[in-house]
Parts: sequence; structure tokens; C-alpha cells
Amino acid sequence: MRPRIAFLGLGLMGAPMARRLAEAGTDLVVWNRSREKTVPFRNIARIAETPMAAARETDAVFLCLTDADAVEAVVLGPAGLAEAGQLKRIVDFSTISPDRTRIIAARIAEATRAAWIDAPVSGGVPGAEQGTLTIMAGGVAADVEAVRPLVAPLCARFTHMGPVGAGQVTKLVNQIISGCTIAVVAEAIAFAEAAGIDATCLTEALAGGFADSAPFRLFAPRMAARDYSRPIGSSRLMLKDLDAVLEAGRKVDAVLPMSSLAAELYRATARYGLADSDIAALIEVLSGDAGKRN
Amino acid sequence: MRPRIAFLGLGLMGAPMARRLAEAGTDLVVWNRSREKTVPFRNIARIAETPMAAARETDAVFLCLTDADAVEAVVLGPAGLAEAGQLKRIVDFSTISPDRTRIIAARIAEATRAAWIDAPVSGGVPGAEQGTLTIMAGGVAADVEAVRPLVAPLCARFTHMGPVGAGQVTKLVNQIISGCTIAVVAEAIAFAEAAGIDATCLTEALAGGFADSAPFRLFAPRMAARDYSRPIGSSRLMLKDLDAVLEAGRKVDAVLPMSSLAAELYRATARYGLADSDIAALIEVLSGDAGKRN
Repeated sequence: MRPRIAFLGLGLMGAPMARRLAEAGTDLVVWNRSREKTVPFRNIARIAETPMAAARETDAVFLCLTDADAVEAVVLGPAGLAEAGQLKRIVDFSTISPDRTRIIAARIAEATRAAWIDAPVSGGVPGAEQGTLTIMAGGVAADVEAVRPLVAPLCARFTHMGPVGAGQVTKLVNQIISGCTIAVVAEAIAFAEAAGIDATCLTEALAGGFADSAPFRLFAPRMAARDYSRPIGSSRLMLKDLDAVLEAGRKVDAVLPMSSLAAELYRATARYGLADSDIAALIEVLSGDAGKRN
Repeated sequence: MRPRIAFLGLGLMGAPMARRLAEAGTDLVVWNRSREKTVPFRNIARIAETPMAAARETDAVFLCLTDADAVEAVVLGPAGLAEAGQLKRIVDFSTISPDRTRIIAARIAEATRAAWIDAPVSGGVPGAEQGTLTIMAGGVAADVEAVRPLVAPLCARFTHMGPVGAGQVTKLVNQIISGCTIAVVAEAIAFAEAAGIDATCLTEALAGGFADSAPFRLFAPRMAARDYSRPIGSSRLMLKDLDAVLEAGRKVDAVLPMSSLAAELYRATARYGLADSDIAALIEVLSGDAGKRN
């Protein structure tokens, strides 16, 4: 029998993920807070009026929402999942804090017996469209294994990292490394320019070595060219993630010098009016160009 | 005709590089400050008594030495290259400062008309053995192109970055990114552990994503396992490179917050008695383990 899945949240990431599930033959029910985003799904899924209605009689409920408040509203708010009767499993692709995850998971388990799997994703819109996301899962092992075939159309990698919350911790680890690496690449490009070499040659020159990484290949050329078109991510979003890292870090007494500094650099970038430019605009602050703009 | 090359400096990197040149059919003359390192070359190269003697009638002189003082001694010291009469080209694989490079290059050009190509390498001993080094070259374009076929047996990549000194600047760029990335990986592993997840799963979970890089794949497992055997590099050497970055940065007014912080973290690691352990031992400082050791 075709698995029946409710997909709640058809944003930038959620829409292509839900579309891939429909194309893989899932019996799909979708819901979105603003109804117009459900329109493109009319021919490939049923449209539900509320999270509660969407969730009934499903094998799993998938969430892909902006933040913890949105997740809490959809799960515990009016006409939310808590009012759907008994539920099997909830897979949350949203990136929210490990702490909020554990609280929401405990409350919905009381109300519906639903098992929670936090499953934040990495890979961006291209990964969502191509079904090549990296997914880091937290939850009871049996539940994680039960949803593995259901999420298979979405990802190249689905790793069980530990109990509920462990997926969100792993996403924070991912953001520490990617957020700091982008800042380091900006610093290296600014240094190269100050020292008089053509920074546009660096991506080629350093390819395949210890300086090479996906953020280097993606952002070094954009930084060297001061090209912020077709934005890949913003300083505002990276700052939100790194501030979440620092908040989580304080709760477990983690020492985070590099992440703290990188967060302040993104904060400075935002102060220079570049919060919503592509994250490559961090180069403006490190090169001093930001001070020369009007 | 077989190219005739003098190779000066048969250390950890130089020896496998010289060996590859011999195997590629080069007419090789070698010299090393301590003579016992020339012994393994007896059947594949001629052994010279001095840099001056080695350099005579060669197509190029290759240097692979520990630091700028060693380069200066071999080039401008007694029985050095400056006393060899007219020379064609000197290719310096050593990692030394851009400033010292420019000074030494100018002085040897006066004495012998030799063209200087600074060509620091990245890729470590495995890259030297396999001939897959990444080489970043500074010098006059015609000279860089003239030596390209001679260095071909050594590298996967040989990029002309600009005038004399530009190769050394590019190597510093490489060290900014790799030195900071290793520090960031240590911080991320320490955070993961403090937050209660199994850090040994991270390499697998984050593979192929934005957190992935050669330093991540190499050092994350060693850090998670506190395994410093078979050292890949030491905090002492990384600190030397990052201090060279900071010195070069001050001369050109570059802003280097992440590199400065990473340098201080390696300095702290050295203060905890871990200067000559594998660089992965930085995890001891960020996790707090260093304070628990005897």
C-alpha cells in the first residue's frame, strides 16, 4: 500500500520536498498556513484545512516550518496535531532549538502518543529539488528506522544521531562549521587582496587542497568579484543560526570562541546594511569596502 | 635532452620530491646540509658538496628548505648559489615570507641573473610521494611557464599567481583557511560532545554537505577519538604559519580576526604541553580535557 503522509509547510524548502514525495507515489495531504501555496499541489495531493485534518489516518506527519513558534502553533495550537487523536510519527524537518524540540515532542506524545523524529536538513533548495538533502535525525531508533523508507525520496543521507533533539544538535554542529568557514574564506580573500594578488585565481589555485570545501568553491568567487546576485543565504539567517549555537552552547557550557567571533562578524555585516544581501557580502566588512559605501 | 636539475634540501618533503624527479628521468644533482640524507640518492643522482657546485650548468635549481634563514644561507651564504656564476632559474618550494622572498630574489638576480620562482607547496608528504602537490607560483610569467614541464612530475596543479612573492602570499591564504578550519572543527566536535551526541558519527552524518572539507574528514574522527597517533601536523607548525600570516597581514593592513583567534588557540594548545602532538590535540583545550590531564 502507498504510504500516506501529511506535509505541513510548503515554503522554500517544503514545497520542493512535498513535490518529490508526490512524484515518488506517496498518498499526500498538504497544508500551509497561507492557502495560496497549496494551489500548485491541487493535482498531486489533497489539500487540508487544518493541521489536525491533514494528520488524521496518516503513516507520518512531516513538518517543514520557519521556527520553533511555528512548530509549536502547528503541533499544540488550535486545530493542531494535538487535536488529531492518535498519531503514529511526526518528522520535523524544521531547524529549531534542541530544547524546544524536546518540550514540544514530550507534549505531543502525551496528547497523541506520537513519536517525534527531529530531522533538520542541510543542502538548501537545490538539495530539496534534487532529493539529495543531508538529514540528521534524533529519536528512538525504531521510529527513525520506520520513517527511513518514507524520507528516502528526499535525501542522499539520513543519519540517526541519538535521542530526540540529537538531530537539532547535529544541525547546530553543521552551522558552526559552515558559518565559521564562510567567515574564514572572506578573511582569506580580503588578505589576498590587501597583499596584492588576484583573488579571482584562488578558487582554481587552491582546489583539491586543505583550503577547499563547498563553501570555499561557492563563496570565494562571489566574494572576489563582489557578486551578491542570486543570493545563496543571508547574513541575517546565518546570524540567527550562530546565535542559536551560542545559546545552546551556554546551556551545556561549551567553549565557542570561533563561533562567537563569526557571529559578531555577521552582526557587523548586518549593521552595515547588508543583513539581507548574500552572505558573501561579509567580504565588505573585512576588506573595509563597507566603510567606503554611501 | 634530459633536463638537468639541482635539488637542494632532502627533508621530509624534499626527499620524495627529488625521488620523483629522478624517476621521471631528470638528470639530477642533489645536495643536503647534513650529508647522510644524500645516501639514498647515490644510485639515482649525483651528490654535490655545496649548493654552488650543485647549481653549475643546470636548467633549474630547486630548493626545499625549512625556513627563510636556510634559504638565505643556501642562496647567499658561503659556497651558495650566488657564487655559482650565471644561473637560469631558481624554484623555491620552501614556505617563507613574501618579504624575505622578494629580498633574496633581488639579491641573487644581481649576482647571477637567475630568475626566481617562489613555489610553495600544499599536500603534505603523501602529496609529495604521489606527485599530487598543489603548487602556487610567483614570478615572471615566462619563467613560470619555462619551469612548468620541469615541475610536472611533482604536482597535480601549478598555478601562476603573480610576480615574485605571490606564491608565498597564496600559501599564506591557504594556511589561513586550513588553520582556521581545523580550529573550527575542534570547536564543533567539543560542542557536539558537550551537547551529548556521539561525535564519532559526525564525519559520516555531515559528509558531502557545507561542513565537509579535507580537514574535517581528516581531523574530526581523530579529535572525536582523541587519537593523536601518526601525526599529520603539529600545533607548533600551524602556529608558526598563522603567526607568519599575522605578520604579513600587519604589513598590508589586513583585518584578520579569525586567524588571530585561531593562532591564540594553537598558542594555548602549545602552553598545555601539546605543541608537538598532532594538531588534533587542539580538541583538548576546547573540550576542557587539557585541564584534567596531569
